[in-house]
This record gives sequence, structure tokens and C-alpha cells, in this order.
Amino acid sequence: MASDPRALAEHIDNVTLIDQHVHGCWTTAGDRHRFENALNEANTEPIVGSGFDTQLGFAVRAHCGPILGLPKHADPHSYWERRGQLGEAELAHRFLPAAGVSDWLVDTGIGVDTADPADMAELSGNRAHEVIRLEQVAEQAARASGDYATAFEDILHRRAATAVATKSILAYRGGFDGDLSEPEPAQVAEAAGRWRDRGGTRLQDRVLLRFGLHQALRLGKPLQFHVGLGDRDCDLHKTNPLLLLDFLRQSGDTPIVLLHCYPYEREAGYLAQAFNHVYVDGGLSVNQLGARSPAFVARLLELAPFDKVLYSSDGFGPAELHFLGAALWRRAIHRVVREFVVDGDWSEPDAIRVVDLIAHDNAAGLYRV
Amino acid sequence: MASDPRALAEHIDNVTLIDQHVHGCWTTAGDRHRFENALNEANTEPIVGSGFDTQLGFAVRAHCGPILGLPKHADPHSYWERRGQLGEAELAHRFLPAAGVSDWLVDTGIGVDTADPADMAELSGNRAHEVIRLEQVAEQAARASGDYATAFEDILHRRAATAVATKSILAYRGGFDGDLSEPEPAQVAEAAGRWRDRGGTRLQDRVLLRFGLHQALRLGKPLQFHVGLGDRDCDLHKTNPLLLLDFLRQSGDTPIVLLHCYPYEREAGYLAQAFNHVYVDGGLSVNQLGARSPAFVARLLELAPFDKVLYSSDGFGPAELHFLGAALWRRAIHRVVREFVVDGDWSEPDAIRVVDLIAHDNAAGLYRV
Amino acid sequence: MASDPRALAEHIDNVTLIDQHVHGCWTTAGDRHRFENALNEANTEPIVGSGFDTQLGFAVRAHCGPILGLPKHADPHSYWERRGQLGEAELAHRFLPAAGVSDWLVDTGIGVDTADPADMAELSGNRAHEVIRLEQVAEQAARASGDYATAFEDILHRRAATAVATKSILAYRGGFDGDLSEPEPAQVAEAAGRWRDRGGTRLQDRVLLRFGLHQALRLGKPLQFHVGLGDRDCDLHKTNPLLLLDFLRQSGDTPIVLLHCYPYEREAGYLAQAFNHVYVDGGLSVNQLGARSPAFVARLLELAPFDKVLYSSDGFGPAELHFLGAALWRRAIHRVVREFVVDGDWSEPDAIRVVDLIAHDNAAGLYRV
Repeated sequence: MASDPRALAEHIDNVTLIDQHVHGCWTTAGDRHRFENALNEANTEPIVGSGFDTQLGFAVRAHCGPILGLPKHADPHSYWERRGQLGEAELAHRFLPAAGVSDWLVDTGIGVDTADPADMAELSGNRAHEVIRLEQVAEQAARASGDYATAFEDILHRRAATAVATKSILAYRGGFDGDLSEPEPAQVAEAAGRWRDRGGTRLQDRVLLRFGLHQALRLGKPLQFHVGLGDRDCDLHKTNPLLLLDFLRQSGDTPIVLLHCYPYEREAGYLAQAFNHVYVDGGLSVNQLGARSPAFVARLLELAPFDKVLYSSDGFGPAELHFLGAALWRRAIHRVVREFVVDGDWSEPDAIRVVDLIAHDNAAGLYRV
Repeated sequence: MASDPRALAEHIDNVTLIDQHVHGCWTTAGDRHRFENALNEANTEPIVGSGFDTQLGFAVRAHCGPILGLPKHADPHSYWERRGQLGEAELAHRFLPAAGVSDWLVDTGIGVDTADPADMAELSGNRAHEVIRLEQVAEQAARASGDYATAFEDILHRRAATAVATKSILAYRGGFDGDLSEPEPAQVAEAAGRWRDRGGTRLQDRVLLRFGLHQALRLGKPLQFHVGLGDRDCDLHKTNPLLLLDFLRQSGDTPIVLLHCYPYEREAGYLAQAFNHVYVDGGLSVNQLGARSPAFVARLLELAPFDKVLYSSDGFGPAELHFLGAALWRRAIHRVVREFVVDGDWSEPDAIRVVDLIAHDNAAGLYRV
Repeated sequence: MASDPRALAEHIDNVTLIDQHVHGCWTTAGDRHRFENALNEANTEPIVGSGFDTQLGFAVRAHCGPILGLPKHADPHSYWERRGQLGEAELAHRFLPAAGVSDWLVDTGIGVDTADPADMAELSGNRAHEVIRLEQVAEQAARASGDYATAFEDILHRRAATAVATKSILAYRGGFDGDLSEPEPAQVAEAAGRWRDRGGTRLQDRVLLRFGLHQALRLGKPLQFHVGLGDRDCDLHKTNPLLLLDFLRQSGDTPIVLLHCYPYEREAGYLAQAFNHVYVDGGLSVNQLGARSPAFVARLLELAPFDKVLYSSDGFGPAELHFLGAALWRRAIHRVVREFVVDGDWSEPDAIRVVDLIAHDNAAGLYRV
């Protein structure tokens, strides 16, 4: 066995990250229920029991507590008291810089009382960029006057002038199975008319969802897909990214980024190998898995070529999550690649290079940040 | 790294378990074929080769042999000879108390020549409680006179007076896909008529299966579902618990317990996070996986909140299985949570508390035992 | 804990393998693009980026380099230069004997400019045997004169006189879902007529695919199925081996071998437990997973009885792959079973016996080589 790779450990501790999919942190005060529910991703109802009784809750106490001056593993009550003393703005000022992130790519499609990209830049002292949610563009087009398709294109292009990527939550709007080809203009006009007549809220129409995807492909900026783990409004088994196979076979060169992916990260890695334009990310899952995240990060290093794997936290709400994603990823990637090096499968310079690819190089090339 | 958590090891060795899903052990003698086939879960035909040539077989030799005075890893022939000398009653007297279980929750829906709850209590010196199999209630209602639905309700409520839970093997009767809503009374009456005309054996009718589930929901006691791994009579891919999503969205507050779950334990954990009333268990799988069970137990500690995870052995037939489930679970949970503690992700008191939740606290609250 | 099992390590280093599913290595020179594309299994287009930036690429540099006199982890450029100096024949002379294989079972259904069984025997100094691809027999029958079914049977039986097994790539021809029962003779004749009229190339017709499978069952030699991981021409989710359940329930005693299996190796292991005539193999996946292959090999040792697990490399093209499959499997099985022994779950003689079963005994019995 090789000796312990110390340069690798130090490199991982200090490597700068591009957080390639994130939401804003909270900007207003809230109660303990809001906080504990934010530790549960899947439940859409007020949780019974404590949000602290999860891998994420344990990870917050272990790794976020010390940033607030608490001992590791401080009890939930103490943790809640301490964060309440500081308030959301101060929490953001502490957690965001501690993440070691240079650029935040912010999906602005959800969230009231959360930071927008400009806020994120100011709170963190880093750069921030917008990711445009396609279903939000659709709702804006539904409210616009005139032809829906023209309005969609106009809004998308106007917003894209200062954005780095688009994002689809098709996973939450019926999932990936079924026809995802580009609809005809007449179909789009008809579907848009129906939707506008019903009020134009919460887009569920498959024709209009498909229209949005193909507009994003035409735009050419990377298109991010929510894949796998999310709240129970999605049918998880319909978010298996293998159901995107036909779409990927016909989507041209526009980069496609598969987000989160649990429990389909092996399938996502297969797609990243199978298609030159497909990338994988493990954000959200790493936070949710806490102490179990090393096994997940290891599975992301199976079939996906190393120049196709990306880092994100998918932090949303508590500023803890924006920091914790980074902290857990550093711990996990160290555990995983250190073992490859110690076992003689990878050299230490190999490992350092792959860490750099995932931490920032792949994302820097993809989003041109 | 933290030092080795010794209090944790000792606690796990001694923690009392509630075995929340189990069947009776054998009460009559049988030949070696019966024993070796009982080590294979999935095959419904006489196995070719040796049932000892499996993870379960190796685990029996490693961990059950010493309870019978044999050296660890005694060869299959010696093991078989030794158990034959003792007989099933003596085996039960040795293995059941050695499991460290306070309460056995016994599914009485299958098994001739196996112990009923009263036998289990006597053989083990512990408490035993009944779990009512819904498909058995249906067969009893089919044989009763008068209206089927009324008979079903009467039998269920009479039996439930002394039982702690219900259980469904829908997984074996067409699986989880398709409509699981409550059928109309007229549909139930019609389906019951057809089924009674055909003899009223082996319930496969979806209307009557759905009727039974909704009667169990109305009863309000925890409803256990066979999920995943079982014998080849089920279509394993139709037992993916994600196919229960619509049912879970509409099933109210009655607790739902997902049993076994392999290879869908990550999906089951997701459901336990997504729904306040959903719980997960890894019985049967732990025994079947033997030396590989730590990886499985680790996956049960991913998305499921820690107050939603339960212990069971699913022992059935050889009394070895009632003991081995406990022995392997103790070994596995120790391996998994010890690593969390040593790596600094959990504190040792955190780990001890989670062990207590899974070992008995969650089940005690759920079943009120 | 037991002391380090040294006899086990030595045994694994030296155990002779039967490579039960492999293709020919290259026999003609090619450029660097050909080589790097051969390190990517899933992509059917020229890859962008480097084929070396994968687990397989890293494994080639770590474990194949030294066979060519290079230091471990030599850089890609040096590796490519060195293999170019030697040429394909010399590479085969170095890599094939280094694999420690006694018998190569060669699927001859694809590959121009690759070694046939006789070449493989000569290049390696070992024995080689043919595996007949059923879809190739079908294409031969389409080109023959007279009745298609008769021609198929004649060709199959003639070729089978010197072959040890058949192989189906149904996974690439629509996948496993749907009816796989034996078609009626009239259906076969009609489908064959249609296919011959269209030119008789690339068999996609389900009737003729099903006909071929049932001919292979009748022949009685082991029937290998491509399962899971392959190139993107297959719909990966339609290669889940659970979709073969109905076929397996009705396929009689002819042995069925599930090849590759990633990411469905746990489902495949279940089938190997559920059916006396089903076997599992992890070839291709082990090479593709490189440093991550121990976790995969461990999952193959879950539900499958140990007398149902087989070794293969699925090497095709670069002779590195024929060697690397063996080298990675030895490393992986050692990591996995050593841990079982050290933890006290298996005895060291148990582990050595299971290694022998997988390495050669199971295949020797199955194929009678």
C-alpha cells in the first residue's frame, strides 16, 4: 500500500468550488418548524417528529455547529437557540464564505424570502450567476400578451443574456416517460390557449413542457434537469434518467446536466458515458445522505468520465445547506479517492487532478464562468 | 479520528429487540432437504446444490454453530448432524432466547407445523403478539356465510382485538402497480360472488385485495406490506414500493410498514422521509445477505428519518433464523454506526440513541407493546 | 478479528480462471482514436475528451502499464506510445498469458479484425472455445435457401457441434419486456419472409428473436444473455433481468447465464437464487468500474448461491481488457472475501473454496471444459 497521500488531503481542504446548482438562502426570520421542515426534502406536509433525526440533521449538528461557535454534535435545542441568536443574514455571512465557493449558479425559479443572485454575491463575497427555470419562463409567457411561443422565446432570450444555464423540473410535471419530441407550432398555440384559459398557473401540459425543453436546446446554454430525489409531488420512479434516452439521442450538442440523481446515480453515470453532451451532479443527495454521502460520491465515480462530473450543493433556505454541501463533499471525495490512491489504483496526482475537474474545472468550461 | 467507541459496542451487544415481523419456528422434525430449502428464499422448487452454499448458509455455520456447541464455521454435515440431535423444540429453546428479543410480532398467515404466538412466547420466554394477514381474513370471509364485506369486517375486528397489526402480501398477488383505491360496495359484492363460486382459495382478485387494504386502513393498526425480496411467485419489479406512491398519498394516518425491501431499500427510505406515516424494515434481507448485511443496513440509514426505521428478523421455519437475524443486525449496525462515530459524523451518544430507536423504541411506540 | 489470511491472498494471485465470455483481441493496427473509444463502452459516437479519463483508463495505466515495462500510472501519452511500439500481436502475446486463464469462451458474433477462437488459443497458449451468437445464426439462416426455421436449426446444430454455448443480444433488439414465448411455425415463416424481403440484416423482429431463443433452449447448451450495461443502442432500463421472469419460469433446464448485469447485479443475483438453472457473471462491468469494481464484485456475492457465480472479462479489442478483467477481478475478490474472513463471517477455507468455484469450477461444470 502507498503511504497516506497528504498532499491530496490538503488539496481537497482548500480547493475552490463552483456550486453549479443552488438556490437562495433565507433572507427573513422564521420559526423552528420552518427550519426543521427544511431538513426534510421529500415530505410536503409539516413533519411529525424532528427534522434533526436524520442524516442531514446529524450532519448539521456535527459540521455546521462549529461554524457558529458550538461544540461538534451540539444538541438540537442548543443548535436552534444559537442560530436564532444570529439571524439569517449573519448566518449567511458565516456559512456562505466558509463553503470555499467562487461562483454560485442560482436557480431563481422558486423561493420567496430567499436571496436572488445579487444577494448571494453580496452575502458571500463571491460571484453569482442566474440559472433560468423553464417552467417559470412558461408562466411569464402565459401572462404576456400575443403569441405564446413568441413570448416564450422573447423572455428566454432576454433573460439568457445574463444567465448561464436553463433548468427543467419536468420531473415534477409528469416525469420523463412519454414523448419528449418537439411539438408542432399549431399544437403549441392550441395548448397555450387552453392553459391561458385555465389561468396559466403551474404548468402541467406536456406539449408546452416539451416546447420549453426544445427552446432551451436551441438556446444552446447547458440545460439542467432535476433527476431523482425531490419532494413527493414527483413520482420518483418516473424520474429515472434512463427514461430520457430517446430525448438524449435527439437533443444535439446542447449540454444536458443531470442533477441530484439519487437513487439513479449509476444510471446517470451511464448516460454521461453514453453521450458526449451529458453531465452528472450529486447536489442535494450529498446533504441528504450526510454520513452516508461517501458511498454516494463513490458511485458517481463509476461509469461517468471524470470530465463529466460536477459539484453542487443545491442549498435552499438555511444557509447551513450551502456550506454543508461543500463540507460533506470534501469529506466524501477525500474518503473515496484517498482509498483509490492507498490501494494503488490511482496515483496521487491523478486524484488531485480529478478533484480539480469536479470541483471547478468541468463547470468552468461548461458554463464559461 | 475519535477513539474506538466502546460503550457503543457494549450497548449493541446487549440492547433488547422487538422483532416486529416474524413467523413461527418449526415444531415438527424434518429432513435435510427441508432445512436446506429453508435457507433459500426465492426458489419455489427443490433446490439443486446445497442451501449451505449461500451467504445465509455461511452465516448459519459461523454464528449459529457456537450456540449449539459447535466451533465457528463447522462444516455443513456436522452442522446438520448436530441440529438433528437436538430436535426443533430444543433448537427453539436455545435460539429464541439467544436473540435478545422482548417481543415477537408473529404473522400467522402461513405455516403448518410452525409455532403460533402462544408457542413462540412459551418457547422463547418472551412476549408474542399476532399480526393478522389480510389475505387470510379474506379467505375466512369467503368461507363465511352472508355478505362478504360484512364477514370480512367482522372477522378482522374480532381478530384485531388481540392483534397488534395487519399485513398484506399484495406483492404476491399481482404486485403494486395499478389502481389501489377503495372499491365500491357493489364491486366488492360482485367480485366476492365470483371468487366464492370458484372456491374462495388463493385470493388474486384486485377488487377484493383493495377492499382488504382499505379495511385495514380504517382499522387504524399499523399495516405491514411485503416489499421486494420474496419467492419467485412475485414479480420482483412489481414490488418496487414507489408503485405505492398514489396509495400512500391517499391512505391517511394509519401507519404503513414496508418490510424486507431489498433491492428497493433506498426507495423505501425515501418513502419513509416523504410520508409521516411510512416506516421501513430490513427483515429477511439481513439474514439472506449474511456477511454482506452491513452494506444493506447502512443503506437503510440514508433517507429514512431515524424514528421511522424498525428491526425484524422475518424468521420462519428454522429457529436459527430468529436468532441469526438479531445476531447479524447487531454486527451490521455496529459496523455502520461505529464508522460514523469514528469518522466524527455522529457522536457516540447519537449512535446509542439511534440503536435504541431501531432496536425497540420505534416499534414500542408504533405497536404499543 | 482473525489475522490476515495469507493463504487466501496467495491463492487468489495464482488461481487459474475460465474466462466464460470474451471476444477476440485486435489483430490489426489502429490509431489512438480507436484505442480511446475502445475504453468507452456506452458511447456509439467518437468520444469527445479522452478515453483515459475514466475508471477503465486509470486502471489500464495502473495495472497494464507494468506488463509493458512502464511504471504504474504512466501518463496516457507514454502509454499510447509504448503500446504503439509493440503492435497488437505482441500486446496479445504479453497480455493474454498474463491473465492466468486456461480457457477462453469466445463470442464470435461481432468483430472484424479481431481474433477468432483459434487465434485466441494461439496468441495466449491456452484453450479457446466458441460461443455462438443466435442473432448471427439468424442472419445466416436469412441468407440460406429454403425454409428459414429449418435453415436456422441446421446451422445452429452444425455450429454447436464444436461450440460450448449460445448467446443472445436480445437486450439490443428491443430489450426483455414483452412476450418471449415460443412462436408458432406459421408465425416464424411469415416473419422470416418479411425479413428476407427487407434484406435480412440486423434482426429486430420479435418473432424471430423469440424463435432463436427457444431453439437455443432446445439445444440445451448454456444460453448467455447480454444484461444491463452496453452501448446506448440498447434501452438500459429494458435490460433489467427481472423482465425475463416469465421466460425463466418456462425455460426448462437449459442453463441461462446473465452477463455483465450492471446496474442490475442485485436483481440478477436474485434470479440466480430463484431458479436452479440461472447463473450470473460480472464481466465488462469489472473492467468499466476499475477502482470501483470491489463494490460491484461484493454485490454479486449477495443473493446468488456461490455455485451460480461465474468469471469473465468480456474483453474485446485491446488485449489489455482480457488481462485487466482478470487482474481487477483478483484484486476485487480479494478485497471482498478477505474482509469476510477478517470479520469472522467466513473461514479462510470457505473463502478459498468460493474463489475456486467462481474462478473455474462453476464454469468447468457448466460448459464441460
